Amino acid sequence: MINYDEQNFLKIGAHIYSKKAQIEKIADEVCEKGFSNILFSSVGGSQAMMDPFRCWINEMSDLPVYSYLSSELIYTGMNQLKDTTLVFMASKSGDTKETVAAAQYIKANTNATIVSVIGKGNSILEELSDYSIVYEDGRPQELILYIVIGKILFNKGYFLDYPTFAKELEYLPEVLCSVRKQVDEKAIAYCQKYHNAPYHIWVASNELWPVCYAFSMCVLEESQWIRTKSVSSAEFFHGTLELIEQNVPVTLLVTEGKTREIDLRVKGFIEKYTKEANVFDCHDFVYPHISDSFRPYLTWVVMNAILQRISKNMEAITKHSLDIRRYYRTVEY
Amino acid sequence: MINYDEQNFLKIGAHIYSKKAQIEKIADEVCEKGFSNILFSSVGGSQAMMDPFRCWINEMSDLPVYSYLSSELIYTGMNQLKDTTLVFMASKSGDTKETVAAAQYIKANTNATIVSVIGKGNSILEELSDYSIVYEDGRPQELILYIVIGKILFNKGYFLDYPTFAKELEYLPEVLCSVRKQVDEKAIAYCQKYHNAPYHIWVASNELWPVCYAFSMCVLEESQWIRTKSVSSAEFFHGTLELIEQNVPVTLLVTEGKTREIDLRVKGFIEKYTKEANVFDCHDFVYPHISDSFRPYLTWVVMNAILQRISKNMEAITKHSLDIRRYYRTVEY
Repeated sequence: MINYDEQNFLKIGAHIYSKKAQIEKIADEVCEKGFSNILFSSVGGSQAMMDPFRCWINEMSDLPVYSYLSSELIYTGMNQLKDTTLVFMASKSGDTKETVAAAQYIKANTNATIVSVIGKGNSILEELSDYSIVYEDGRPQELILYIVIGKILFNKGYFLDYPTFAKELEYLPEVLCSVRKQVDEKAIAYCQKYHNAPYHIWVASNELWPVCYAFSMCVLEESQWIRTKSVSSAEFFHGTLELIEQNVPVTLLVTEGKTREIDLRVKGFIEKYTKEANVFDCHDFVYPHISDSFRPYLTWVVMNAILQRISKNMEAITKHSLDIRRYYRTVEY
Repeated sequence: MINYDEQNFLKIGAHIYSKKAQIEKIADEVCEKGFSNILFSSVGGSQAMMDPFRCWINEMSDLPVYSYLSSELIYTGMNQLKDTTLVFMASKSGDTKETVAAAQYIKANTNATIVSVIGKGNSILEELSDYSIVYEDGRPQELILYIVIGKILFNKGYFLDYPTFAKELEYLPEVLCSVRKQVDEKAIAYCQKYHNAPYHIWVASNELWPVCYAFSMCVLEESQWIRTKSVSSAEFFHGTLELIEQNVPVTLLVTEGKTREIDLRVKGFIEKYTKEANVFDCHDFVYPHISDSFRPYLTWVVMNAILQRISKNMEAITKHSLDIRRYYRTVEY
């Protein structure tokens, strides 16, 4: 497998899992202090990384939970942001302009508690946060949120199986390596066929929608300069379907979560009306060591690993490095 | 002006405004009964028609307000949906499958109050709703929501200027005719230049984002089969910007609301990096009889009227009727 280092993946996964006690302690302190609602606020890929956890909290509890882009938050305010709000923020660099501005806005206007997931130590965002988990070389970041949010849900009585789930999370890096291997052949064929396609449609629902949205925007558009329309499965039939023709590549991500039926409705349609229908369905993959009942909770982190095989293979075929940017952090704007 | 009947526009606008007392009575009854939060739930263009009012409520009050696609709601539930929730739903036909299913779900699981905005009388959605406003030939539907939500905000002490605002709303049909005339020449030039473009990028922020999203999806894609990527101004710099080249048409909708600065940042960028930058800025239009302080509240309904001149002129140039569908309500799926 190209651009794949299994030992490293296992190592960087273990690095985050080794912080489990520290992360759970944050959850305990946050619960002890108390909070009345939860807000996820960042921008771009970082917001999309956190957004599936909003769906998870909605499904698991009756805690009020919101997502709000940092860039809009600082201009519009957010009327449920209070002293008792628990805010989750994320930034790889720790200095993302909009996210830092939102953290400053939150601290200037409230006593809300900020918990941040940050890639680098000693950042401005870390300084502004009440709690930070710095993952450095650790991956995937989602593992941090599974632990902190899982433990909060457990503490509040919403997720009694958390201790078992948390034990199985130790295998998450192995699961993600396994699905990468399971999908690679399909991913290579996909990239060979579509790396030159003039236009893609990508579709997914609910907790996989942020994954689909971010992969289209941050990988296909930003890193490969491929034109892509992403649309949620729930909305597909309210407009975008009319663009489907036999030669239009459509890629559908199918969840094992509660909205699976919406995805399958799209699947039935695209398999009839385009010869270029491509489906990546979590249900087709083995997750070693993971209980069946937890599989739906891992949908988004698994799908991100699956899609990583598309980005890595796409890069190898197009010879367009995933790191080249025309504008982002290259020119001033 | 092609496909434009001013007398009819004024008539259908007056038709809705004539129901003002009836609509305000709904607001009064809803307030008298009391509610703890507000939910907007529908799908496609109807949801996008309502979504700017979520931004408005967020800006004007501390009422908790949510948007949730009906199609996802019925599968995932929505953890703040309670007996005391005030639900707004909308459907042109009154029989949109997902919206009707969500209304049934809400009634089966809660005693929430449903207020619906519906195009046709005697529909299933009307039957499921506690209150319905049937607008028949009336336009724009937004006028209904300005009155019912404006009056609720007034009753609760958040919008003391509502009586003046409501009086000025009588001129809304005239304002919308005026902006149509103000923009038509520019819209014609736009359509002549871009009706054959292989790909469009459309950008807007906050309360104009649903307008941009729906125009891209329900008009350009669904009704004209034009490939379009829509992205919020707040997210533009986190991926899509990399697709900008000197020959890529970008259309930016600029608000007069609080996120204007985010839009202007995009404006600066696209005017530098593509020769095909197109900007429709609410600030450039005269709104006869409307107080300056109310202009930001009308941004979304005004922008919809502006964009209607693009759809009407596009149809005339492409000779592709806005009513032709390959699939929607044509084939089974």
